[in-house]
Amino acid sequence: MKPQEIEDRSMAIIERELGERRWPPEEMVIVKRCIHTSADFDYADNLVFSPGAVQRGLEALKRGTTIVTDTSMAAAGINKASAAALGVQIRCFMADEEVAREAKNRGITRAAVCMEKAAALGEPVILAVGNAPTALLRLHEMMEAGEFFPELVIGVPVGFVNVVESKELILSSPVPHIVARGRKGGSNIAAAICNALLYQVYRQE
Amino acid sequence: MKPQEIEDRSMAIIERELGERRWPPEEMVIVKRCIHTSADFDYADNLVFSPGAVQRGLEALKRGTTIVTDTSMAAAGINKASAAALGVQIRCFMADEEVAREAKNRGITRAAVCMEKAAALGEPVILAVGNAPTALLRLHEMMEAGEFFPELVIGVPVGFVNVVESKELILSSPVPHIVARGRKGGSNIAAAICNALLYQVYRQE
Repeated sequence: MKPQEIEDRSMAIIERELGERRWPPEEMVIVKRCIHTSADFDYADNLVFSPGAVQRGLEALKRGTTIVTDTSMAAAGINKASAAALGVQIRCFMADEEVAREAKNRGITRAAVCMEKAAALGEPVILAVGNAPTALLRLHEMMEAGEFFPELVIGVPVGFVNVVESKELILSSPVPHIVARGRKGGSNIAAAICNALLYQVYRQE
Repeated sequence: MKPQEIEDRSMAIIERELGERRWPPEEMVIVKRCIHTSADFDYADNLVFSPGAVQRGLEALKRGTTIVTDTSMAAAGINKASAAALGVQIRCFMADEEVAREAKNRGITRAAVCMEKAAALGEPVILAVGNAPTALLRLHEMMEAGEFFPELVIGVPVGFVNVVESKELILSSPVPHIVARGRKGGSNIAAAICNALLYQVYRQE
């Protein structure tokens, strides 16, 4: 079986097990891809899409908008060929020495500094956060201060401390968002959502 | 809160929610780290350790044994500083052009070719498979043929087609293994297990 055949069959199994549950088509492919990447059907319950968020993301990708992630693992999981074909850059600042130095000097997390780096790009960005609640907390502060407003926030950090709260902040904000409510998420989920968006615009292996 | 403090608090929450369930200490840190990286307590039920597998992995890491992964995402998730401090190399052949060419010519998956590349290193390896059941199928063939016998197999591909079966093959083989039985797993889980092993030998951020 070819990889595409395996994926098609997997998606058919997921759809069957989802039974009568339905989402708008552009959201359903995201729900299905999150389940595909985790085999965890909880994503059918915890994914929240703000109105028009997916459309906003798709239009941004068509314009070649940069995706910024909070982990190199999420960046590694995004389909490079599809992104490149659209002129979409994938950026992650977590491994920058300057970010580590600044975080240490200021006593904040590297993830928080990375959000400032994303804002400092001075261009529209899609933010994909799969790990660090402090990234969402700093983002929320900057949005409140009118310093940063991403095209789309994919807010899916995973964990047990400050994670639920950080996602609730994004859920109650006006920024277009796709959020996995609760504890679950991760770099794999952040990448899966980015890919589910990219593949709706252009798919290349 | 510092990252280490957040992690300690997270692990304490996980331990509390696991209640009375206990594993040998060197296995329990692996179970907890898989839950930490996914917020999915199913890993308390699906992780299977062959007798002595963890000890075998720890001793291999102390000797600087190379870790080969089946995705760049899993490789990206492994703590580079800890690996480097032990002289452990992290290798992934999936993006090699030669691998793509050979897979196409022979009509097999890139992941299967990667397992042959791992065997061809001609040195002891720890294999971490988080994505491709065909990697485990090819590995099993090579083991049956006496061509390859890794120090440890971390067999945690995720998915709906051939995944369960590929893991059962490893579960019934004599190779030291850590397997997530059933559909669940992923590159994040593969990386988490590698890190849980590395941190038992040496932790460096």
